[in-house]
Amino acid sequence: MTHEFRIVGSNVPRTDARSKVTGAAMYTDDFKLPGMLFGKILRSPIAHGRILNIDVSKAAALPGVKCVITGEDTPKIKYGNWRLFPQTQDEYPLAVDKVRFIGDEVAAVAAIDIDTAEEALELVKVEYEELPAVFDVDRAIIEGAPVIHSITPNNISVDRKIQFGDVDRGFAESDYIRDDVFRVPAVNHAYMEPCSTLARVDADGRITIWTSTQTPYIVQCLLASTLGMRENDVRVIKPAVGGGFGGKMEMRSWDFCAAFMAQKTGRPVKITLTREEEFISGRRRHPMKIWSRVGFKKDGTLMAKDLKVLLDGGAYNSMGPTATFLCGYFGAMLYRIPNYRYFGQRVYTNKPPSGAMRGFGAPQSLFAGETQMNMVAEALGIDPIDLRIKNAVQSGYRIPDVATVSSCGLIDSLNQAKKLSSWTEKRSELKDGKGIGVACYSFISGGVFNWFNTQYPFSAAEVRAFADGTVHLLTMASDIGQGSDTVLKQILAEELGLKMEDIRLTAADTAMTPQADLGSWGSRVTLMAGNAVIDAARQIKDKLAGALFSRFNLNVIFKVEFKNGRVFPEGKPERSMTFGEAVSTAQKANQGIPLVARGHYTPRGKGIVTPTFSFGTQVAQVDVDKETGIVKVEKLWTAHDCGTAINPVSVEGQLEGSVHMGLGYALCEQLVVKEGTTLNQDFLDYKIPSAEDMPPGESVCVDTYEPEGPMGAKEAGEGLVSPTAPAIAEAVFHATGFRSTELPITPENVLRGIGKL
Amino acid sequence: MTHEFRIVGSNVPRTDARSKVTGAAMYTDDFKLPGMLFGKILRSPIAHGRILNIDVSKAAALPGVKCVITGEDTPKIKYGNWRLFPQTQDEYPLAVDKVRFIGDEVAAVAAIDIDTAEEALELVKVEYEELPAVFDVDRAIIEGAPVIHSITPNNISVDRKIQFGDVDRGFAESDYIRDDVFRVPAVNHAYMEPCSTLARVDADGRITIWTSTQTPYIVQCLLASTLGMRENDVRVIKPAVGGGFGGKMEMRSWDFCAAFMAQKTGRPVKITLTREEEFISGRRRHPMKIWSRVGFKKDGTLMAKDLKVLLDGGAYNSMGPTATFLCGYFGAMLYRIPNYRYFGQRVYTNKPPSGAMRGFGAPQSLFAGETQMNMVAEALGIDPIDLRIKNAVQSGYRIPDVATVSSCGLIDSLNQAKKLSSWTEKRSELKDGKGIGVACYSFISGGVFNWFNTQYPFSAAEVRAFADGTVHLLTMASDIGQGSDTVLKQILAEELGLKMEDIRLTAADTAMTPQADLGSWGSRVTLMAGNAVIDAARQIKDKLAGALFSRFNLNVIFKVEFKNGRVFPEGKPERSMTFGEAVSTAQKANQGIPLVARGHYTPRGKGIVTPTFSFGTQVAQVDVDKETGIVKVEKLWTAHDCGTAINPVSVEGQLEGSVHMGLGYALCEQLVVKEGTTLNQDFLDYKIPSAEDMPPGESVCVDTYEPEGPMGAKEAGEGLVSPTAPAIAEAVFHATGFRSTELPITPENVLRGIGKL
Repeated sequence: MTHEFRIVGSNVPRTDARSKVTGAAMYTDDFKLPGMLFGKILRSPIAHGRILNIDVSKAAALPGVKCVITGEDTPKIKYGNWRLFPQTQDEYPLAVDKVRFIGDEVAAVAAIDIDTAEEALELVKVEYEELPAVFDVDRAIIEGAPVIHSITPNNISVDRKIQFGDVDRGFAESDYIRDDVFRVPAVNHAYMEPCSTLARVDADGRITIWTSTQTPYIVQCLLASTLGMRENDVRVIKPAVGGGFGGKMEMRSWDFCAAFMAQKTGRPVKITLTREEEFISGRRRHPMKIWSRVGFKKDGTLMAKDLKVLLDGGAYNSMGPTATFLCGYFGAMLYRIPNYRYFGQRVYTNKPPSGAMRGFGAPQSLFAGETQMNMVAEALGIDPIDLRIKNAVQSGYRIPDVATVSSCGLIDSLNQAKKLSSWTEKRSELKDGKGIGVACYSFISGGVFNWFNTQYPFSAAEVRAFADGTVHLLTMASDIGQGSDTVLKQILAEELGLKMEDIRLTAADTAMTPQADLGSWGSRVTLMAGNAVIDAARQIKDKLAGALFSRFNLNVIFKVEFKNGRVFPEGKPERSMTFGEAVSTAQKANQGIPLVARGHYTPRGKGIVTPTFSFGTQVAQVDVDKETGIVKVEKLWTAHDCGTAINPVSVEGQLEGSVHMGLGYALCEQLVVKEGTTLNQDFLDYKIPSAEDMPPGESVCVDTYEPEGPMGAKEAGEGLVSPTAPAIAEAVFHATGFRSTELPITPENVLRGIGKL
Repeated sequence: MTHEFRIVGSNVPRTDARSKVTGAAMYTDDFKLPGMLFGKILRSPIAHGRILNIDVSKAAALPGVKCVITGEDTPKIKYGNWRLFPQTQDEYPLAVDKVRFIGDEVAAVAAIDIDTAEEALELVKVEYEELPAVFDVDRAIIEGAPVIHSITPNNISVDRKIQFGDVDRGFAESDYIRDDVFRVPAVNHAYMEPCSTLARVDADGRITIWTSTQTPYIVQCLLASTLGMRENDVRVIKPAVGGGFGGKMEMRSWDFCAAFMAQKTGRPVKITLTREEEFISGRRRHPMKIWSRVGFKKDGTLMAKDLKVLLDGGAYNSMGPTATFLCGYFGAMLYRIPNYRYFGQRVYTNKPPSGAMRGFGAPQSLFAGETQMNMVAEALGIDPIDLRIKNAVQSGYRIPDVATVSSCGLIDSLNQAKKLSSWTEKRSELKDGKGIGVACYSFISGGVFNWFNTQYPFSAAEVRAFADGTVHLLTMASDIGQGSDTVLKQILAEELGLKMEDIRLTAADTAMTPQADLGSWGSRVTLMAGNAVIDAARQIKDKLAGALFSRFNLNVIFKVEFKNGRVFPEGKPERSMTFGEAVSTAQKANQGIPLVARGHYTPRGKGIVTPTFSFGTQVAQVDVDKETGIVKVEKLWTAHDCGTAINPVSVEGQLEGSVHMGLGYALCEQLVVKEGTTLNQDFLDYKIPSAEDMPPGESVCVDTYEPEGPMGAKEAGEGLVSPTAPAIAEAVFHATGFRSTELPITPENVLRGIGKL
């Protein structure tokens, strides 16, 4: 398509790059306030138990300790992101009555330094009555299992069904049916910056917190709620954030404890987690047990799918309800499935809560679905890519009751990946432990279902235009390292015909930026905040066009262009004003009142999932050492459809990050939890791929233009995390004949799989 | 009048009181940023000279010194508040070519600590060619005097005329004419917090400064201009400010130097002046020589006035042009003068620049005018209060071409002061060195004339209303200790029927609060920012009224009340919603878009001075010790008309502060400048009254309601600084027969006046 952009589509340097590289960027832990105290959290050493008594007297008496709190001191208000269904809000900021996992937050202290705070933790004496615990989803749901939350006697906190077509008939009409079970482990977000919160009581009694979060608005609301305050008496500011990947999209105990202890002491309180705390008690990607039955015609036509999933949710719901739905939704994506049934159950266990993590149900669901697709191809003797092309969804396809696909480059991506990777040749020629495999993905561009029950637009932007030719963009959207600040500035610069340096950006401060933005998750920011920015920008443009018409007494039919800092009627650049002159003129016409516009975006009529979908295909080539079982990924080819790439180099960064995360998920990452204890508590024991492990790659952007997206864009940050594992698994199968239905595909598993262990 | 208020008119505690009393309030110098440097300024040791050479090499080589700058390093752009007349902008941030007073800024350094910075200053070697200097206005304007600015060969940078009626005929028709000359000295603002600036280069290359200022918007614009940047690439934040009194209403050298050195070093730079610097080089109230001729009928009718003033402006214009006009304007106020002529000349001398100071021309002009009024009363044998009542302006009075008086309690104030002080009895009975005297004042409620040439409304306010029943008020108005934050919150709370604690206030941040506000000077904030707040609040109310009408399907003629956190039709409280419910309903009606309104105020059609005027009368009783010459003020009675007192205890605070300042002006304060050197450089040598010296007082508010003011209010912070000196002077005359036409009335002057010296 012919969309001519100047700034959108070009590799604009990230606005935060310099400050991050030089160390000037301020992360939460970098902030120091006068009189600031340091907080620490006492965690449960047992997986399940009743709190009989907590004696804080010795801790409180330790010199330098300014505050010790337990759940009993607090307002005892439960929280959780799923405000729309209050019964899902199952977590206290500090444990009340019971602890439910090893690491559950029991008490907090604030002291003049970290050492004193840690010493005080040891002086807090907690008496527990230990209760039987359950760590396995299969056991947790049987009659007589320990009950983790009394209102959920069967330990199934959420279940979710999706159904369309006639599944039984679909299978009846199938020539080939297969059942498989897949298991995927818990993995850690491994963001570079551990969680950190700094809370201050303002002069007027309000609370301000700086916190490492993806969702300042959510933290604001839930923190206010748990403190018993009004929403707008809490201000949340997001400083520089060193990654989130879903692990920072909730209000958490430390946000509450820092704020509550700041209230109790009148002094600022900062709490920064250690890496060990992150591993032991941090949110994680849901481990799942996935049972999938598919039915095909002999010619490869997909007829029916029946999917059942048990999600190991750990001790609290966290973002589990969303993962439970999305897992089923992703099970129905990618291919035209005429008959589909999904039943997902999110199960409580006495383990650290699972939450959101990059992909949000897709990596699990697509590992199963794409692996099974490869199995079917094998069984039916059809090339895996051809099988996919045969069934692939296309633009306009409607998933009944769920979604309608707008732009769709899936088939293109399959064809391009096939070509790019020399698939056909390699598929037939690779030998000696080498293999090649393929997998696809689709992902959402933001969520439509309003589980947070916000009363505001999903995204908002304020644009202030000034006579000096600059504009100020205010948005609650949160750059957590993914580069959204840069992208939003590009969109605004493009729309207004300005340069990047003409734009001041203020973001992610709940008191100062416009209500609201749901945060950075579900790959929603570019599309939703981007659309809000365009909405605001167009209002500004209307005003400036008016100034131009009035100054040159133009015929009302002219279209006005905004380019290179100038405003002029299309085709008549000689009748132009600078952007600043136009602002000045418009402002004068309104008696000096400054030019301000607020734009908004809320997806309406977009099904129940997302306004639009990304697609893509990845091909992996591996070399499996049959002696050691080590899988080396030799190369990855990716063809992906993210609509317009607002900032191509940023999209590439997202691709590389996704590959890195997908590679770990495929081959080496897993949280090993034994009797509720997470055994790997640091980066020595928890293996993430190093730079050395990263395979070379080639990628191509499939050319699509998404009508719902800002300037044709859709998501680029999450979908790509899914195909790597199933593509590698297929390549391993191609190389060795070993088909792994579990992750990670460790050397041990490979050796066992090929009969060497 | 019957205006029922709940919060307006009550003694609401100052919102900043607690933080200031506990020391929690953050003034500029309290801020510390990582890597921050400390700046110092090198000042000229000579009163007038050409800079031949500056050698900074030794200073720059001193370990710990990170930056040394001179005027030559800078963009050499002149600045000054009178942007409307660029030729008045006569000051460089750092001297270029010439120095013009002792203290003129010549160079600046930034170092890792203050000691190093001070040491570096001593290492900067400046070669001057000394030029003849002139320190006296009479000498400065004669032919052949040293020329201080080459474009102003006669050293008269500004002159201003006001004329109406036929002055010559007025005098011709007078029975009694007198000429007098008055002299008033330079005095120091003596604010508690010396000037301080902290500048940082933001990650995006923009500049942020925190500065102790009355006028963040003005500093933003002029700092951007002198740095060669765009206005909105500079952000000015006003932290807590410890007083200004006119001394902090300009961009100053340290704002520029901190910002410029932050740019050069990439590190934050803070400059805080010492008290000595404040005394030696700080702005000051204009010393003046005032010649006044008045003509009266025998019966006391004022027929004509001819006023000529030489203002000693010092080396740069500063706010001199405004003082030059206002001095003439105040000469025409208070009384119905049918024929008036004013000629004011602001004269350059080689002394520190005079600027704005509380009263802004009024203390000088009214000392002359009110003293002369008392002289005339004496001469005509008319009681001074009766003479004033006879000539007093009243509501509706029009000063030709200048202003129309709206509400006016002058005559009331005279009558009430007379009664309150038992004037008549005391005037006839006081003996033995005791005396009683009277003087009146009038003052502006903000200036109308746009000398800063702003393109924005004079005041603006944004109000955001939330469903939790809170509102957020954003305004660039600057609380510098006068209490405007509290007053604006009261006005908003009153208008919306909320409580003070329902309001979050963000003020005085040029990047975040709405454009613009001209700052805190000329007693403009309550009236102008208050009106902007009401404008915004009413837009919010319109929306909420709509929500109410729609919810209860009301007849369109109902008036809607906002009281006690509820919204309801007048007289039908049973059909009410809480404020928050109404917001929620209005927001829902607009698809969740938050409720935000921007209000503005710009005085239009309000003459050329001010939208409205305060008035008042003060009576002083003194006891003069004829042996020592010491004047003890035994009591002060004040009747003043400030319209509605939004916060009576704050008005009382303003009265006490004004009396304190007026007392010092009357009796003891003066900057003693010899050959350009200010001799009194600290509070030991510069005498301000102590708490012990404060006289007991009684005061009464005259009941008026100003239609142009927010909820009937007008100014209360500056006018009262004027009457104290002339009232005391008259009381001294009444007690001793010594009539002082100069200030301060020191013991030495009294003894000389009564022939004892």
